[in-house]
Amino acid sequence: MTGRDDMSAEERLIARYFGPLATAPGAFGLSDDAAVVTPPPGFDLVLTTDGVIAGVHVFPDDASGNIGRKALRMNLSDLAAKGAKPVGFLLSIALPGKIEEAWLAGFAAGLGEDATQYQCPLLGGDTDHTPGPLSVSIAAFGVLPHGTMVRRSTAKVGDAVVVTGTIGDAALGVRVRRDASLAARWRLPDAMSAHLKDRYLLPQPRNALAEALRQYASAAMDVSDGLAGDLGKLCRASGVAAEIDVARVPLSDAARAAIAAEQALLETALTGGDDYEIILTLAPAKLAAFRAAAEKAGVAMTEIGRVTAGQGARFMHDGKPLAFARASYSHF
Amino acid sequence: MTGRDDMSAEERLIARYFGPLATAPGAFGLSDDAAVVTPPPGFDLVLTTDGVIAGVHVFPDDASGNIGRKALRMNLSDLAAKGAKPVGFLLSIALPGKIEEAWLAGFAAGLGEDATQYQCPLLGGDTDHTPGPLSVSIAAFGVLPHGTMVRRSTAKVGDAVVVTGTIGDAALGVRVRRDASLAARWRLPDAMSAHLKDRYLLPQPRNALAEALRQYASAAMDVSDGLAGDLGKLCRASGVAAEIDVARVPLSDAARAAIAAEQALLETALTGGDDYEIILTLAPAKLAAFRAAAEKAGVAMTEIGRVTAGQGARFMHDGKPLAFARASYSHF
Repeated sequence: MTGRDDMSAEERLIARYFGPLATAPGAFGLSDDAAVVTPPPGFDLVLTTDGVIAGVHVFPDDASGNIGRKALRMNLSDLAAKGAKPVGFLLSIALPGKIEEAWLAGFAAGLGEDATQYQCPLLGGDTDHTPGPLSVSIAAFGVLPHGTMVRRSTAKVGDAVVVTGTIGDAALGVRVRRDASLAARWRLPDAMSAHLKDRYLLPQPRNALAEALRQYASAAMDVSDGLAGDLGKLCRASGVAAEIDVARVPLSDAARAAIAAEQALLETALTGGDDYEIILTLAPAKLAAFRAAAEKAGVAMTEIGRVTAGQGARFMHDGKPLAFARASYSHF
Repeated sequence: MTGRDDMSAEERLIARYFGPLATAPGAFGLSDDAAVVTPPPGFDLVLTTDGVIAGVHVFPDDASGNIGRKALRMNLSDLAAKGAKPVGFLLSIALPGKIEEAWLAGFAAGLGEDATQYQCPLLGGDTDHTPGPLSVSIAAFGVLPHGTMVRRSTAKVGDAVVVTGTIGDAALGVRVRRDASLAARWRLPDAMSAHLKDRYLLPQPRNALAEALRQYASAAMDVSDGLAGDLGKLCRASGVAAEIDVARVPLSDAARAAIAAEQALLETALTGGDDYEIILTLAPAKLAAFRAAAEKAGVAMTEIGRVTAGQGARFMHDGKPLAFARASYSHF
């Protein structure tokens, strides 16, 4: 291995590839056991963790740069939905087999691009070898004024239900990624097929909306396990029901084309995971102001229904509630 | 799976086994996407992450309660070495194959005991299935007065070098755990063999010393990758050297017996990992006060050498520096 006073191979790899991502003063250039974050006076720290395992959340042959970015963006999406501004993240990575430095260089480069873009620097981490598949776990941190985290549990009867972006692309994209013949079966031009796959590969977290969410939303969460299931969780946490007009759920042209070719894909779109959009509720009187803020942030938003009294999220389609075989993604 | 408005199996397992560990108000009973921590005014948050993979850091057939505790204690040890008081942790767990509820119940029970003992409640987490081995990644958080984190990089020439507890037990213990015949070869009575294995299985993080470290230490880190290698890291970060008197390195009776039976085990003890003791430096004038504080905290401490000018940590044995084949544990 290495001489007594030399850095170990592990230290060298960390310094070389991850050191440049540790731009926050409190990361100490990854040279200490721990990092320090000092929230501004009167601010809370918001903490979340999420990760990917090759073969479960990402494909083992995805570009390594995209794997790192996806793992970070899953966490950024949680911070966005809670109204928090990112301050940094911890990275735990378990690497299978022999380390390919090119793989690691790509991984760190992708992660570094996003750390810069979202102003969310690396604060520290943990690197291991594993006999299993590649696994990346991230814990991400954000700040917001004390007591202003946007909760799941505070939706009010009468609120409007709003969703950002478009729904279902990633759930359709992963199916095309697994089985390329589906693109032909769904009669998708290459650009549409690529759009769906890209939406699976690389979420677009809505951090630009965080401040508007704190200002206007009564409740919010990110849509990671499917719109139907996640809205169900929000309703359960808030002790309310919701009625959604399926015709208003925003779909991309590609998703619309796939569903036109195969009606059953509507359920895939509404219950599949990996959207990383935000579902929020807000008083109807605040809709116009939120719409203006979303437009300014460059994020599309669509009102898709109302919060009602009762239990459960009902998705109304042609006047009848849809019955889903499986409302959301569950690991068990 | 589950009906539209029901909790998923994943949600139920989390609520049942991990919900009771989420005692901090900012954990929202694990019902939200993120947790909130509010450091007291004038305090910093200290962040660290570490974890275990079955077959790498723990044995797959270790009691599940001990696996959870070990993962948490590895992180608590980092917080202790930095002088931080624990405030909570995030848990990412990837479970292989079918979930055994009894396994999960034991895991959560062990983790819960430690969360209570160390006042470090669960704040949130992420649960997945994996085609690979069990993997547990923890990110832990502590607080301390602004700017007082004990660094690795601030040791001064002339400082005393002190280590807590005893060194090498875990490195010997894991060898006995792998090959039971070694206990006979090393002529260890059952109690000694058990002592070494226990020290590997369940670290004893020195959180009781955190405040004294902030008060007296010039630099500190926890010893997780072997005393020789970790002291080397501290020296490198501080731009100093150290001279250690091997005869003064604290050894348990069991480690002493094993080394008496097989001299080469001295190197195992000094370079093996998993001690989870603390190596610190401090001005010699502060030794007596630190000794008193350690005694009050119930933690043994031993002065083992001095910080000197130059580079590298030299371990002096019978008047000569030891040359180690491999100074510390590295995953690569």
